[in-house]
Amino acid sequence: MTYSYNFPRPAVTVDAVVVCTEKNSILLIKRKNDPFKGQWALPGGFVDEDEIPEKAVQRELNEETSLELKPLSMIGVFGEKGRDPRGWTISVAYYFECIEGLMSMAKSGSDSAETEWFPTSELPELAFDHKKIIAKALDGKDRSKKTQ
Amino acid sequence: MTYSYNFPRPAVTVDAVVVCTEKNSILLIKRKNDPFKGQWALPGGFVDEDEIPEKAVQRELNEETSLELKPLSMIGVFGEKGRDPRGWTISVAYYFECIEGLMSMAKSGSDSAETEWFPTSELPELAFDHKKIIAKALDGKDRSKKTQ
Repeated sequence: MTYSYNFPRPAVTVDAVVVCTEKNSILLIKRKNDPFKGQWALPGGFVDEDEIPEKAVQRELNEETSLELKPLSMIGVFGEKGRDPRGWTISVAYYFECIEGLMSMAKSGSDSAETEWFPTSELPELAFDHKKIIAKALDGKDRSKKTQ
Repeated sequence: MTYSYNFPRPAVTVDAVVVCTEKNSILLIKRKNDPFKGQWALPGGFVDEDEIPEKAVQRELNEETSLELKPLSMIGVFGEKGRDPRGWTISVAYYFECIEGLMSMAKSGSDSAETEWFPTSELPELAFDHKKIIAKALDGKDRSKKTQ
């Protein structure tokens, strides 16, 4: 089935930056499908029709990591040309915190091959512009700490 | 010309909440086209292909009000079912401030019939979910004042 429109439309995705602040670690998934199959990435995926992005990111996080968390804040909206090899894709990224005691609850689901916590100082190569999204998330956090 | 995709895609728009804090006023435009033709609304419009939403909102604000401003912050992403009669539409809303001396620079452009500053306490009926977007913008501002 195809969906046709009079003007070009972007694909809209959501991404989850889940941080355990006690361990200074971020949750990543290994991608099961192309593009970037086998590469580490943030949990996330496509927004369903008429789904609020904030709900979509909770659903995708749960599908890919089994975690049930609510976002604390929005990191930003990322829509730069070339950020996704499939074409024009706009992503809304959300910031989550996970307490240390829940870290082991993260398990790979239907859309991810593996999940793993990485220290923020030792992140692997990442798919898409996910390094940039993480940098913005951590930068915002540092700023809010400094002004406290 | 039509654009076809394997999955449904939303239209993505941007909206500008421009506030003159000295006058406690918000800038609105009268819509030139359907839907909501002739009704007051926030300045805004569709994101162009591969355009960053933050740039799109500056372009749309300029096209509709002649103002050249940069957003101070993002208010949120609005994607609730039914918010646009044309169908699935996700809007990224940005917050701008305009000093009193620049208020008279706002002039209607190609995509707006009129522009006018309204006191935040006396807003007219608004198109789409723009009342909700303004409420969220002003609520965030009140909160930040309270914590100062």
